[in-house]
Amino acid sequence: MSERHIEVVEVGPRDGLQGEPRTLPIERRKAFIDRAVASGIRRLEVASFVHPKRVPQMADAEGLLEALDYDNGATYIGLVLNQRGLDRALTTPVHEIGMAVIASDTYNQKNQGVGTAESVAAWWQMAEQARAAGKRISVMLSSAFGCPFEGEVPEDLVVELAHAVMAAEPDELAIADSIGVAVPAQVTRLCRRLREAFPDVPLRCHFHNTRNTGLANAQAAVDAGASSLDASIGGIGGCPFAPAATGNIPTEDLVYLLQRSGVDTDVDLEALIKTSEWLATELDHSLPALLPRAGLFPPAPTLR
Amino acid sequence: MSERHIEVVEVGPRDGLQGEPRTLPIERRKAFIDRAVASGIRRLEVASFVHPKRVPQMADAEGLLEALDYDNGATYIGLVLNQRGLDRALTTPVHEIGMAVIASDTYNQKNQGVGTAESVAAWWQMAEQARAAGKRISVMLSSAFGCPFEGEVPEDLVVELAHAVMAAEPDELAIADSIGVAVPAQVTRLCRRLREAFPDVPLRCHFHNTRNTGLANAQAAVDAGASSLDASIGGIGGCPFAPAATGNIPTEDLVYLLQRSGVDTDVDLEALIKTSEWLATELDHSLPALLPRAGLFPPAPTLR
Repeated sequence: MSERHIEVVEVGPRDGLQGEPRTLPIERRKAFIDRAVASGIRRLEVASFVHPKRVPQMADAEGLLEALDYDNGATYIGLVLNQRGLDRALTTPVHEIGMAVIASDTYNQKNQGVGTAESVAAWWQMAEQARAAGKRISVMLSSAFGCPFEGEVPEDLVVELAHAVMAAEPDELAIADSIGVAVPAQVTRLCRRLREAFPDVPLRCHFHNTRNTGLANAQAAVDAGASSLDASIGGIGGCPFAPAATGNIPTEDLVYLLQRSGVDTDVDLEALIKTSEWLATELDHSLPALLPRAGLFPPAPTLR
Repeated sequence: MSERHIEVVEVGPRDGLQGEPRTLPIERRKAFIDRAVASGIRRLEVASFVHPKRVPQMADAEGLLEALDYDNGATYIGLVLNQRGLDRALTTPVHEIGMAVIASDTYNQKNQGVGTAESVAAWWQMAEQARAAGKRISVMLSSAFGCPFEGEVPEDLVVELAHAVMAAEPDELAIADSIGVAVPAQVTRLCRRLREAFPDVPLRCHFHNTRNTGLANAQAAVDAGASSLDASIGGIGGCPFAPAATGNIPTEDLVYLLQRSGVDTDVDLEALIKTSEWLATELDHSLPALLPRAGLFPPAPTLR
């Protein structure tokens, strides 16, 4: 039946938990990751090597990486924003170093303390060190569809930035709609241009469902040739009680969409839903994902 | 800028309110409709002519139709499920009679007391009467992507049913994912087949966001040639506190997606958001729509 495979990258342990009011201890973060892997997820963003004062939810990334299981076939990504973070990450057995450059100078300045051009130069240097240390490397162009400070982010600027970061020859190029403003028409255009420019490098897309366009954007990315999609179980990161919900697209809703479309993900949807329910208990609030509330369709195997 | 126009049909006053625990009096239902029209909506499903014991939220459809404004350029649709409902509707100044046939025999039986074939025959008769009375007529194939009782609904069956109902020459053909199980790949296939079979009759699509695929399905329908999309302001009909959220796709989230894609809708997004906030107060709970929480993008005209 399946014509195609899409890799679903679970980013709940990093991008999801980072936005949650409750900080989970290492042991619960590991349980979350283990459950995701047990449901069939094979690549996960598990930690961010940032200062714990800045993001307390990500404290002791080294301890987490030390505790994780390395015999389960999963690839762990650690997010790194600067040299200090990379130095920390390289002391751990993390498989892949993910780095980010924000496609808006103002936002990059506010988030990383330097302009976009400086971040690109830092990426070149760090990519080389990470590769020399035997790590897989990937780079994400953040806020590729809009910036909270500058507003519109020109498509040409993103493509230009892609050429700049691709000079370091990463294993993958990623683009992110960090603030959840993208619409499918934009995703289609940008993905097509990037696939044309870099046909030999896999493209990964990262969407937030902030304005309810997340799954439509994911579908557009699949149609335009992306090979991997980020998502978080439960759609965490966007607490329903916060004024602006900014969660990732929910993994279970995405996998439902893909599976019913005949796209293979190797993920067990029932196991995902159980993990989502477990996570809601751990975080002590309901999660934005809709599939756990609505249920699978067809409702039972006997109806198939 | 705009390459294309999509008509957004506001179904909140009928499909939305029908699923709400609180019943709004005629005067508040009229205020809802007036606000939607003031925001630029030009076609609305305003009432269902069903027995008030069955759907108390729709009580006194005649009173509502009597109270409405007819000098605002809007087209009002009244939903009719049987001859009794049609007789009632024809005593009112409603512009359009909408009828539904459920693409699953079991569901049609449970909902309308007769099988699908009988509903088709009833539609033929009622369509003729409604047209003779000078009304616009449209027909919706409900549960066209899945049935809660029978599970999968074969695409061939829906196309066959479309041929049957089209014999009455309606002004429009509509298809509905009544229980929110569709995915874009299905929508693309079915819409394409219906557009090929009936190129001269406009196609309208009706999606629920039950499993978070609603806006992705709407995009697929637009791409496959649909000319109208149903939506409800706030995404009402799916109370966030109910076990399974089953609201329509939120009008404001849909219009955001379309407008940012360069598709023209003639709707004022800021006015829609204000109406959504007003509606949340009227219904006394938060609504599923995300745009009112997240805000417009770009955030202010000065950033454009």
